[in-house]
Amino acid sequence: MAGNTFGKVFRVTTWGESHGPALGAVIDGCPPGMELDLTDIQKDLDRRRPGKGGGESPRKEPDQVDILSGIFEGLTTGTPISLIIYNKDARSKAYDHLQNVFRPGHGDLTYLEKYGIRDHRGGGRASARETVARVAAGAVARKILAENDIAVTAYTIAMGEVSTTKRNMAEIAQNRLCCPDLEAAAEMEKLIEKIKKSGDSLGGIVEVKASGCPAGLGEPVFEKLDGALAQALMSIGAVKGVEIGSGFAAAGLLGSENNDALTPQGYRTNNAGGILAGISNGDDIVARVAVKPIPSIGLEQDTLNLDREPVKIKVGGRHDISAIPRIVPVCEAMVCLTLADHLLRQKTIED
Amino acid sequence: MAGNTFGKVFRVTTWGESHGPALGAVIDGCPPGMELDLTDIQKDLDRRRPGKGGGESPRKEPDQVDILSGIFEGLTTGTPISLIIYNKDARSKAYDHLQNVFRPGHGDLTYLEKYGIRDHRGGGRASARETVARVAAGAVARKILAENDIAVTAYTIAMGEVSTTKRNMAEIAQNRLCCPDLEAAAEMEKLIEKIKKSGDSLGGIVEVKASGCPAGLGEPVFEKLDGALAQALMSIGAVKGVEIGSGFAAAGLLGSENNDALTPQGYRTNNAGGILAGISNGDDIVARVAVKPIPSIGLEQDTLNLDREPVKIKVGGRHDISAIPRIVPVCEAMVCLTLADHLLRQKTIED
Amino acid sequence: MAGNTFGKVFRVTTWGESHGPALGAVIDGCPPGMELDLTDIQKDLDRRRPGKGGGESPRKEPDQVDILSGIFEGLTTGTPISLIIYNKDARSKAYDHLQNVFRPGHGDLTYLEKYGIRDHRGGGRASARETVARVAAGAVARKILAENDIAVTAYTIAMGEVSTTKRNMAEIAQNRLCCPDLEAAAEMEKLIEKIKKSGDSLGGIVEVKASGCPAGLGEPVFEKLDGALAQALMSIGAVKGVEIGSGFAAAGLLGSENNDALTPQGYRTNNAGGILAGISNGDDIVARVAVKPIPSIGLEQDTLNLDREPVKIKVGGRHDISAIPRIVPVCEAMVCLTLADHLLRQKTIED
Amino acid sequence: MAGNTFGKVFRVTTWGESHGPALGAVIDGCPPGMELDLTDIQKDLDRRRPGKGGGESPRKEPDQVDILSGIFEGLTTGTPISLIIYNKDARSKAYDHLQNVFRPGHGDLTYLEKYGIRDHRGGGRASARETVARVAAGAVARKILAENDIAVTAYTIAMGEVSTTKRNMAEIAQNRLCCPDLEAAAEMEKLIEKIKKSGDSLGGIVEVKASGCPAGLGEPVFEKLDGALAQALMSIGAVKGVEIGSGFAAAGLLGSENNDALTPQGYRTNNAGGILAGISNGDDIVARVAVKPIPSIGLEQDTLNLDREPVKIKVGGRHDISAIPRIVPVCEAMVCLTLADHLLRQKTIED
Repeated sequence: MAGNTFGKVFRVTTWGESHGPALGAVIDGCPPGMELDLTDIQKDLDRRRPGKGGGESPRKEPDQVDILSGIFEGLTTGTPISLIIYNKDARSKAYDHLQNVFRPGHGDLTYLEKYGIRDHRGGGRASARETVARVAAGAVARKILAENDIAVTAYTIAMGEVSTTKRNMAEIAQNRLCCPDLEAAAEMEKLIEKIKKSGDSLGGIVEVKASGCPAGLGEPVFEKLDGALAQALMSIGAVKGVEIGSGFAAAGLLGSENNDALTPQGYRTNNAGGILAGISNGDDIVARVAVKPIPSIGLEQDTLNLDREPVKIKVGGRHDISAIPRIVPVCEAMVCLTLADHLLRQKTIED
Repeated sequence: MAGNTFGKVFRVTTWGESHGPALGAVIDGCPPGMELDLTDIQKDLDRRRPGKGGGESPRKEPDQVDILSGIFEGLTTGTPISLIIYNKDARSKAYDHLQNVFRPGHGDLTYLEKYGIRDHRGGGRASARETVARVAAGAVARKILAENDIAVTAYTIAMGEVSTTKRNMAEIAQNRLCCPDLEAAAEMEKLIEKIKKSGDSLGGIVEVKASGCPAGLGEPVFEKLDGALAQALMSIGAVKGVEIGSGFAAAGLLGSENNDALTPQGYRTNNAGGILAGISNGDDIVARVAVKPIPSIGLEQDTLNLDREPVKIKVGGRHDISAIPRIVPVCEAMVCLTLADHLLRQKTIED
Repeated sequence: MAGNTFGKVFRVTTWGESHGPALGAVIDGCPPGMELDLTDIQKDLDRRRPGKGGGESPRKEPDQVDILSGIFEGLTTGTPISLIIYNKDARSKAYDHLQNVFRPGHGDLTYLEKYGIRDHRGGGRASARETVARVAAGAVARKILAENDIAVTAYTIAMGEVSTTKRNMAEIAQNRLCCPDLEAAAEMEKLIEKIKKSGDSLGGIVEVKASGCPAGLGEPVFEKLDGALAQALMSIGAVKGVEIGSGFAAAGLLGSENNDALTPQGYRTNNAGGILAGISNGDDIVARVAVKPIPSIGLEQDTLNLDREPVKIKVGGRHDISAIPRIVPVCEAMVCLTLADHLLRQKTIED
Repeated sequence: MAGNTFGKVFRVTTWGESHGPALGAVIDGCPPGMELDLTDIQKDLDRRRPGKGGGESPRKEPDQVDILSGIFEGLTTGTPISLIIYNKDARSKAYDHLQNVFRPGHGDLTYLEKYGIRDHRGGGRASARETVARVAAGAVARKILAENDIAVTAYTIAMGEVSTTKRNMAEIAQNRLCCPDLEAAAEMEKLIEKIKKSGDSLGGIVEVKASGCPAGLGEPVFEKLDGALAQALMSIGAVKGVEIGSGFAAAGLLGSENNDALTPQGYRTNNAGGILAGISNGDDIVARVAVKPIPSIGLEQDTLNLDREPVKIKVGGRHDISAIPRIVPVCEAMVCLTLADHLLRQKTIED
């Protein structure tokens, strides 16, 4: 039973492969009467576009989005919004040599094990290119959030061994790695350069913050807001961990340290990450995700071929050195989709 | 739009509050013809029962489960299985003094903000007591897994500042903290004793391992197995973080370090935690959760009353010092529910 | 993939068999802060109770409902409402002779074919007794509708060959067959008496009317209000047909006859049955269901035994002569559940 | 909460308006490894294409379908199948005069009441053109059914006052009205000619038969096969009634007449329409739908304008005289979608 739909009220179904003719998303449940045009969506797509910098893929995709339905005279109508992004620079030939081999760290083998068939061209549906549809749909969700004064921002706080505790939000837009610390960003760039030369790849940590979120979102007991965010973020290919607020650090804190005291001015601290008992508390929602290093590396690795015989592989193709920073808008998109869905869900119990 | 149902094919709906007459679960989608009796379920319930040790709640609940439907002559019939556990030792009076105050770290205020009403007795639906229904349902899921030779085991690997890298699975049952390292368990006990005296509480880390899981489970792109596990585990009240395989450590690894080489004998390492591209790869599935310290502490804290005026609070009641070890079978239950659901989901595409 | 849950926002899961210890319903998604007590529910349950008249089953069930969760100090809390009705007069022995034979017109064989196992006692889950849980849950839905000035009434307009075009709503409560025409009701009673003596059974037609329903409910294109009502009503065991407004008669009308002209005073006619393009139009919603004759008859019938050998059967047990009038509150319940769900669903797109 | 998705395991989401750039369907849950090419789908689309005969719309749409994803080297991959049909002959201008008026019998007003906005061009999403996506998706479902030796055929058995009891399946393809009785078809054609001249429109009855369906499909108690079919068929715009097997006639039959006796050769009769207790019994599944006359007629009608003032309207545009026969493949599509979904759902409880 397939799983290409996200959300319950604001519901997004995505489709498309890395090397098919197009990818897209169908949004069902977007409230009617909302202004929406292409530029709203294009802006976010441009942020995740390949080919923006040194550490990244040379695949050149314009990622131009079209809206095929659900809009009338610039307003949403309440009917499904169909978004489409055509693939323009899909060079399938580049993947011919991967047809008979399973790339370590990729879903090549698991897709085959699951479906009994796989589209080997660029990872098919397992490609990070799939996230273009998430970002497009997420931009629509972001519009709904903006109308409710909710803003979602993601940023890089660690890359390989370089990390930062600084949160200068103004600096995020001033470096291509989306790091809220320009000095750390410069260190990260040096690291990227070094790792690139070695043929290896890098992971990192992205933090996502949602401000302006009203208290009351999240659905106990199984669809708590933190649970929903965890699923949303973990469903991004490269993510191997999700934490909310104090997260894994909470394991080492005492109750008296981790509890956020309530004061007339609000919560004194935000170890909860804006979520208590699975429900938003009105404070900033803060989540962090662990991003694994890109598995496609230039170094020789041990693997198996289709006949399950041991072979050596060097993955060519046009790959990034790290999922960061292109994963940053994807993380934002997943948080936007989650919050928009829960914002609309909450309306079912309000007067 | 409420969220008390978990799963798509093996679907569990739970209900009940800490101080209501009973709690329960309705399982829809359990395959017919499977042997099931009370002892299968009672065994797991006994493992999460209160009052097992020094650091724990003195509330005495027998947690005796009844099966009200879905079984005929010892076999499941394919119709809904209704499980019920009556509350026997619910002393609501003990919570009268909490009626007008919001406990820090609890959902008291967020429940009120969400629903405009709250059952203050013992946390109502937000109580950890809610997990009794998860464990009961999880025991049925575990039966399905057992028939497919899948075993799920959780264990404590950190408590406060004490942690271990040892995984002696035989030692788990030899200490009440379910730690696979008896020496670490002894250290943890000392820590519990110390923290208990101070009136404070402790968090920790629980690891869950599923062995025997076939390759192919998980539903790209939004309902990947890791995403599903993340939601499942994060939906447990005290959990603030979830990671799979190398998890947050992956952020600091190079691709060449984090990739699991394929060999004719299987994957050489298991940084993937048994999941690649959201699909199980046949290796052990390994997840870890960060458990926050119990927010109910004996120390004085700042908070607000119903009129939003600052007050001091010392939380009385009958509370545990840590969600560990009682959360251990709850973690197992959520993983069992997730895997059983995905095991049955996979059948829809198999011949 | 099982189907014991109804609704998307107001979501009901039912469980229980004819001869198990109890039956029940769990309602998830009921808005918080609504007054609800047992008498609200009991009133509807009493209307479908067995043993009310000549043509009906002698099984004596008090059908006393208990609320196990979701209510605090007389108000709904927004958490799941668990309703339970214990079976008191389940004489399983009476079904022993049916253990090895398939009753014509019943689900005995299809349940076995589907599940590979069946609970033969009184039809198990396929028993009309299952509807007790629908009626209990429907009573809660009815409360929500009442708060929105929506009233749902069902009544008998045909029984066997006796039918009526009269709609004297005041007369419905004046005869046990719930017929809005006392003369027709008297004719129906005579027919029942006659058929009862012959050992045969009767079908009929029930009409359901919902008044006060606001325009705008229903979800194009697949979950239109008429589609939702059709599923809801057809899911009642004895129902073999559902029509809305002019229904099957529309097939023989011209467009100029069937169209409802719009006037400043409202629609001139109501051939639409209150639903246009799948969305309520503010007029009365009118649906009719065809109820098949009860398959359990005293006459000898041809059938097969478990070995698929031909045998004769006379069905004993304690059966009604017709599903009417006990199906009347069940029809109301299903319409209440449908409308409450769609009323809440509509809130997701309203300001 | 929107409703543009149909099915649980074989899940179809449709999108698109009458006068937008395109319409489409995304299928999630199609089993992998199935051969699928455009001709499979185009064949069904051609059967519902406009402009096939005297009584029909002169809008000329080639209805050429493209597959944008989910297929690799001619086989389904298990990933979402995106189908698109571009609108080529959408003359929006023709609807300018309808901008300020509500057409009787159409959803013009209810869409506005629901969404607060409507796309008046050709009915927007409420247009019968929406069914092109259902037929495209239904063709994929039909492939799955064909692999399981299930065949679905719909045909016209009544048009206005002309009806037939003949079921000569060979004659269906021999007349454009898809009637299994050539003589009745000729009568219907005469009636169409007559009504066309009068500026009025016609309804009728379509029967759908599914043969080869295995016993065991359908999900008690709310998602019974008959309930699922009722929803599926009633969700087609022009349908006002659905009946299974003996349907409304069952209301007037005795139990001894309506029960289908079981014999070693199968059921002696098929009053059940192939479904008992909501589960297929292996016999032919037979459903009938009442199709209302097309509401767009050339005759003058009373209605309201946007200011709710009374006005006269004559609906121009390019309309059919009857939804029959173009609705015939749409009925087939909805039954194919329903059966394919339930066929796959049943796999979750089979070994």
